[in-house]
Amino acid sequence: MEFERIDRVRPLQWNGDNLQILDQRLLPQRIQHLVCSNAAEVAEAIKVLAVRGAPAIGIAGAYGVVLAARNVVADSGLKVLESIRQELNMLEEARPTAVNLRWAVQRMRARLSALGSDWRHGIEQEARTIQAEDLAANHAMGRMGALCLPEAARVLTHCNTGSLATAGFGTALGVIRAGVSMGRIAKVYASETRPWLQGSRLTIWELLQDGIEATLIVDSASAYLMQQGKLDAVIVGADRICANGDVANKIGTYAHALAARAHGVKVMVVAPSTTVDMATGKGTDIEIEQRSSAELTHIGGLAVAAEAASAYNPVFDITPASYVDFLITEKVVIECPDAVKMGAFFGSVDNT
Amino acid sequence: MEFERIDRVRPLQWNGDNLQILDQRLLPQRIQHLVCSNAAEVAEAIKVLAVRGAPAIGIAGAYGVVLAARNVVADSGLKVLESIRQELNMLEEARPTAVNLRWAVQRMRARLSALGSDWRHGIEQEARTIQAEDLAANHAMGRMGALCLPEAARVLTHCNTGSLATAGFGTALGVIRAGVSMGRIAKVYASETRPWLQGSRLTIWELLQDGIEATLIVDSASAYLMQQGKLDAVIVGADRICANGDVANKIGTYAHALAARAHGVKVMVVAPSTTVDMATGKGTDIEIEQRSSAELTHIGGLAVAAEAASAYNPVFDITPASYVDFLITEKVVIECPDAVKMGAFFGSVDNT
Repeated sequence: MEFERIDRVRPLQWNGDNLQILDQRLLPQRIQHLVCSNAAEVAEAIKVLAVRGAPAIGIAGAYGVVLAARNVVADSGLKVLESIRQELNMLEEARPTAVNLRWAVQRMRARLSALGSDWRHGIEQEARTIQAEDLAANHAMGRMGALCLPEAARVLTHCNTGSLATAGFGTALGVIRAGVSMGRIAKVYASETRPWLQGSRLTIWELLQDGIEATLIVDSASAYLMQQGKLDAVIVGADRICANGDVANKIGTYAHALAARAHGVKVMVVAPSTTVDMATGKGTDIEIEQRSSAELTHIGGLAVAAEAASAYNPVFDITPASYVDFLITEKVVIECPDAVKMGAFFGSVDNT
Repeated sequence: MEFERIDRVRPLQWNGDNLQILDQRLLPQRIQHLVCSNAAEVAEAIKVLAVRGAPAIGIAGAYGVVLAARNVVADSGLKVLESIRQELNMLEEARPTAVNLRWAVQRMRARLSALGSDWRHGIEQEARTIQAEDLAANHAMGRMGALCLPEAARVLTHCNTGSLATAGFGTALGVIRAGVSMGRIAKVYASETRPWLQGSRLTIWELLQDGIEATLIVDSASAYLMQQGKLDAVIVGADRICANGDVANKIGTYAHALAARAHGVKVMVVAPSTTVDMATGKGTDIEIEQRSSAELTHIGGLAVAAEAASAYNPVFDITPASYVDFLITEKVVIECPDAVKMGAFFGSVDNT
C-alpha cells in the first residue's frame, strides 16, 4: 500500500538551519510558514498553537533542542546540555498535557549526554530520527487500525490527528486515510471541535487535499448520529495514555465515547507508543491545560459573546480506559485496554 | 417573589399596528429591531431566526395572523379565514419542528372562525392573550422548577430558553432566574450551543442584563464537568414533547442527557403545555429541521472551514423520555415522564 501518495501535507520542515512551521492558526484560509531559528521561537509557536497535535509538538520540541544547542561551543554533549538547561525546560513546559513534548525533549537530553565532540551532527540526526520514526509509526498504525474496522465502516473523528498533528499521515486520521485507501470506510464524519475548530479548519481541509470527502457536524451532534444508527466507530488520537489505559485527548472525546458506549459504537484510540506515559497512573493524575476564555468568546478575532462573558476552557478531557474498545499503537493493538494489559505491553517503556 | 424585576428583555413587542422583533441574529453586538407589518415579514423573520425559541415563534405566529387579517374587509371571522388561508399556511410552515408555532396559528384560526363582525378586536386580543399566558406560564414553571432543584445547585443550561425565546422570563432559563432569586442555585454554566451560539450570544447576554453570572463552556465539555462532580442538574427547554414523553430540543440536548445519566446528574425539561404534542407518538415521528452547511462553515460571515466543506446540520435532537428526570410545565410537574403519565395529564390537551 503506497500511503505516501495519499498524504500531501507537512506541518514541520527542517532545512538543516531552521524549522519551518506551517502556521495552523491561519488554516485553511492562508498557507503561511513561521521560520524558527531559536528555541524560544519554537516554544512560542507551540504555546500559541501555530503547531499543535501531540506528536507534532514532540517533533518541534526535538528540533527546538537542536536550535538551542546551535550556538554553543563545547567539546561534549554533556557540556552543551549544561549551558542550554533553561531553554530545554522552557521547551518542555510550552504545553503541559501532551506527554510527547516532554518525551521528545528528554530523549534529546539523553542523546546529548551520550555524545562526545561529534554532538552537533548527532543531535540533529536524533531529531530527524524522531520525526522519521513518527511517520513510520503512523503508517503502521493506519494499516492495523483499518483492519480493526468493520466492512464499509461509517466513522467519526474528532479534532485533527492528521499530517498536521504528526510527522505526516496521522494517527486517527492515518487510520481513516488507510481505511479509505483499503476500501474499508464508507463514510467519514468530522466533528468541528470547539473551541479551536481543528475539525472544520484542519481535518476537513487535509482530507480535501487528499480527495477524501468528509461531512462536518457540530460536536454535540454525534450522539444523535449514533441514535439514528449512522455510525460504526469513533476514531480519535490521544495526548497522553496512562498506565491504566485512561486517555487524555481533546475536549469532547469523552462525550463522544459516552454516546458511543450507549449505542454500541466502537471507540478506537490511535497513538504512537510515545504517547503512553506509564509514569502517570490514571487520568485524574494528568494536568489538564486550561486556556483563555477568549477562545470561546471570540472566533477569528470576532467577538461572539457578551463583552463580560467568562468561560471555563479545559483543552482536554479524560476518557476512562473502560470506554476504549481498541488502543492502536505502532507496536501493539490492545483490545479493551486496562492496567494489566498496559503493564504487559508497556511496562518497559522508558518515560523517565 | 417579584419575578418581573429580574427580567429586562423582550423579544416581541406589539404596538397595535406592527410587530417589533428584536433581531437575535445581531445580538449581543447590536440591539436592533425588525418592524413587521405583514404576515410574510413575520414568516421570514421566523425562518431566518431573527426570532427563535419555540414559545416566541408561536407568539410571533399569532401576531402574524393579526397582520394577515388586517387589510381584509369581511363581516365575519370565517370569511377572513378563507381569504388569508395561504398566509396562515406560510406562517405555520416557517419552521417545522417546534409545535408551538403550529399550535398558535391553529388557536388563532379557531378563534377567528368563532368571531363575528367584531373579529378585528377579537383576534388582536387572542394574540395578546397567548403572549400573556406564556409569560404567566413561565413564572409558574420557574417557581416549580426551582423547587425541584437540590440546595446550592450547580446547573447547566443549553441553547437560549430565556426572555428572548418566550414572551418573557423564560422556560429553562426561567427556572434558573427563579432559582437564583430564591437562593437555590450556586453556579450557572451555559453551553455555547453550536452552530448558532445561542448560549454564548444570547443566554450569557440575557443573564448579564439581570446581573446573573454564568460560565460559558463548549458543548462537548459538559461530560467532563460532570465527570469532575461539578454539576447537579441540566436544565433545558423543548421544541416538542411527544405523547410518550420524548423531547425534541436543540441539537446537543441528547448528548448532555446521556452524560447526565452516566453521572447521576438530573435532567429537567421545562416547557409550557403548548409544547406538548399528544398527536405525535414518539420522538422518531418528529420532523427534524435540517439547516444550511453554512451555519457550520461560516461564523459571523467569516469562513472557518475549507471552501468545499459540507456539513450535516440537524437543528434538534431527540432525548428519549427515559432520560428525563423532571418535566416541568405550568400545569403539572411530572417526575420520570412516560406514556402513561403523559396520557393522564395531557390526554385532553387539544393539539388539533
